[in-house]
Amino acid sequence: METVKVAVVGCGTVGSGVVDILLKNKTIIEKRTGRRIELSFVADRDFEKVKKLGIDESVIKRDGFDVIDSDVDIVVELVGGTTVAREIVSAALRNGKSVVSANKALFASYGKELFKEAENNGVAIRFEASVGGGIPVIKALNEGLVANRIEKILGIINGTANFILTEMTENLLPFKEALRIAKEKGYAETDPSYDIDGIDAAHKIAILSSIASGKWITVDDVYTRGIRDITPFDIEFANEFEYRIKLLAVAKFNDSGVEVRVHPAFLPESHILSSVEGVFNACLIEGDFVGPTLYYGMGAGREPTASAVVADIADIALGKGSSVPVQLFSEEENVCVRDPEDFTTCFYLRFTALDKSGVLSRISGILAKYGISIKMAFQKNIGFNGGVPVVMTTHVAPLRTVKEAVKEIDKLDVIVNPTFLCMIEE
Amino acid sequence: METVKVAVVGCGTVGSGVVDILLKNKTIIEKRTGRRIELSFVADRDFEKVKKLGIDESVIKRDGFDVIDSDVDIVVELVGGTTVAREIVSAALRNGKSVVSANKALFASYGKELFKEAENNGVAIRFEASVGGGIPVIKALNEGLVANRIEKILGIINGTANFILTEMTENLLPFKEALRIAKEKGYAETDPSYDIDGIDAAHKIAILSSIASGKWITVDDVYTRGIRDITPFDIEFANEFEYRIKLLAVAKFNDSGVEVRVHPAFLPESHILSSVEGVFNACLIEGDFVGPTLYYGMGAGREPTASAVVADIADIALGKGSSVPVQLFSEEENVCVRDPEDFTTCFYLRFTALDKSGVLSRISGILAKYGISIKMAFQKNIGFNGGVPVVMTTHVAPLRTVKEAVKEIDKLDVIVNPTFLCMIEE
Repeated sequence: METVKVAVVGCGTVGSGVVDILLKNKTIIEKRTGRRIELSFVADRDFEKVKKLGIDESVIKRDGFDVIDSDVDIVVELVGGTTVAREIVSAALRNGKSVVSANKALFASYGKELFKEAENNGVAIRFEASVGGGIPVIKALNEGLVANRIEKILGIINGTANFILTEMTENLLPFKEALRIAKEKGYAETDPSYDIDGIDAAHKIAILSSIASGKWITVDDVYTRGIRDITPFDIEFANEFEYRIKLLAVAKFNDSGVEVRVHPAFLPESHILSSVEGVFNACLIEGDFVGPTLYYGMGAGREPTASAVVADIADIALGKGSSVPVQLFSEEENVCVRDPEDFTTCFYLRFTALDKSGVLSRISGILAKYGISIKMAFQKNIGFNGGVPVVMTTHVAPLRTVKEAVKEIDKLDVIVNPTFLCMIEE
Repeated sequence: METVKVAVVGCGTVGSGVVDILLKNKTIIEKRTGRRIELSFVADRDFEKVKKLGIDESVIKRDGFDVIDSDVDIVVELVGGTTVAREIVSAALRNGKSVVSANKALFASYGKELFKEAENNGVAIRFEASVGGGIPVIKALNEGLVANRIEKILGIINGTANFILTEMTENLLPFKEALRIAKEKGYAETDPSYDIDGIDAAHKIAILSSIASGKWITVDDVYTRGIRDITPFDIEFANEFEYRIKLLAVAKFNDSGVEVRVHPAFLPESHILSSVEGVFNACLIEGDFVGPTLYYGMGAGREPTASAVVADIADIALGKGSSVPVQLFSEEENVCVRDPEDFTTCFYLRFTALDKSGVLSRISGILAKYGISIKMAFQKNIGFNGGVPVVMTTHVAPLRTVKEAVKEIDKLDVIVNPTFLCMIEE
């Protein structure tokens, strides 16, 4: 049986999961692939921690950079970040080693140069674990749906945000309380902004839309908004009209270009993504021939992420090459990323106004001036952030126009707090 | 760019879809794979029909067997059945051509010998389209989840049956009426038994569980029951207790062996598979590291099926080998398929009894004798097939014991029709 030598650089949560799988499911993987995956280099500063995983002491190293001169075939980069990780990956590729990584920030920022480096050196990069944890969604998109022109991707791809929104929905909690619970359960970091401001999801949808379109799309191309402003009032309103509020990652592809965005959205209760609860992730991908397909599973965590990393190792061991379309190596840039504010959709607008007569007419007057047509209006006599809530849903309108109108409305003396706007995805 | 020559043998519904994709999405596929897929042989008895697809006349042939001596690299077998198809596939493999097929019956019956033939000749067989139409579920199972010991597969993998059950549920229609609508819409064949008796789903779960376990599991190993006996009464009862009735394909793997079955089942309304409606398919696959994952999409139809076929062509063009685990080639048979009647679950039992006193006590007496514990009993005073319906749900019990008890109950003079039993999958 052919032996493939693997190095794990960075043996934290995911790294120790990878070691666990390679030890525990060694025989299964050998039988399935016909390859012996040999763990021959594990680098981490904490020697004792790694030793406890049950691997031979001789393979434990303190310096990840030593991997470059070693005889391993595949380097698994689990250092994280975009500085040291980038150096290690780049040096490994230059030295003829293939790379597996779960580092979405690295690929969303330096994907293009790293994949060129891999191509120039005849080696592969795979990064299944960077999106959707254990769900083989990159494989599905790049291989399973290879025959299709991808028309749309709709994803719930940040488990932390989805957990918070699920808590808020099920128990009508304020955002801060739901966030506290998420931290308590270990689902949110001490500084949770990466997850709750949509940045993590933006990295992931940048990667998915790059694969789908064949052009490198970076986080800067993604319109990004988080979930901090959502209140239990919005959740209740959504529920009443049979919607769920979800942090959605959206990519739409058509002849005029690509539209990529991450933001909270109203999703009909009957939509298949509405039933994705808690820390689960799901991605709906539509192709011109296959129609809609969905991929669902645990989007984070030690074991699921390690499962995806080992799948990549197996694919490289079997000579399957990189997990991006060949065209991403080329210089061609014929896909136009549309200005994120150009997109049109229906909106939910929640104003906070003084409880005075004429408020509704002044707000709707400004919306009318901008050509924004109101589907439903609703005012409730409850105290809300120093005013009363006034809610409107609109017919389809461009985001840019709605933002301009809201800006003007927010200047009215009867408006006491910035207006919350949310897309409605039908 | 490397050119790979492809033959399509059998240009019916799926075949013409494959031709369509290879013509329409030629550039996309080339850019993604770096391979030129050349359609150089299309065999069908109906020359004129094929000509209309817009391919060059010179590649259209009448005899599929001519492909054996042609210079194509990949033969796409879409003849169907297990006689001519088997001969063509076998001859193609012997002549060093890789094979792509959507023929589940062929692989469920002759998988072992065909894969041996492929291995002996250093070529590949792929068959993604045989399960789940366009959903890349075989790829997910065999490649994406390669790191996992597979613990459970739960699938809705027959669109016809799922359409009929969805119709029955939404409109409380009798089975025959729902079947009529399915036929009208082209979702059911003139003789629908293959779909509604669970045979098609049995073929598919045999393939999936073979890949998961590494042992060839055939249709004969699958406990199979269809949906003919389900009545609107059962559907209503299920709905009332927040269940959905679905035709489920189940495979469970543990140390004592593999348990594979296809049958109607009560599924909690909140279960993610309960929201799979109409002709859609979905497969829930659980691995020891990845946890539960779900794959969803259109399980049949010209375009989705063709999408899967072309993905297989691309994979072979990229040298990716067969879509089964290497161990399936070996002689080892260390996985024990458990006797299908050995499995234990909760049951729904619907008796049809005369409206006489003592009925309930006589039925429950027999169940008690067999050690079957009743969770809930319910008798309704409505006319039902010449009697009244008596419904019971049980605690966990072995299928074998429940069948024996029901056999004894059905001999009672107060029972006027055979009892309907249905598994409850929590």
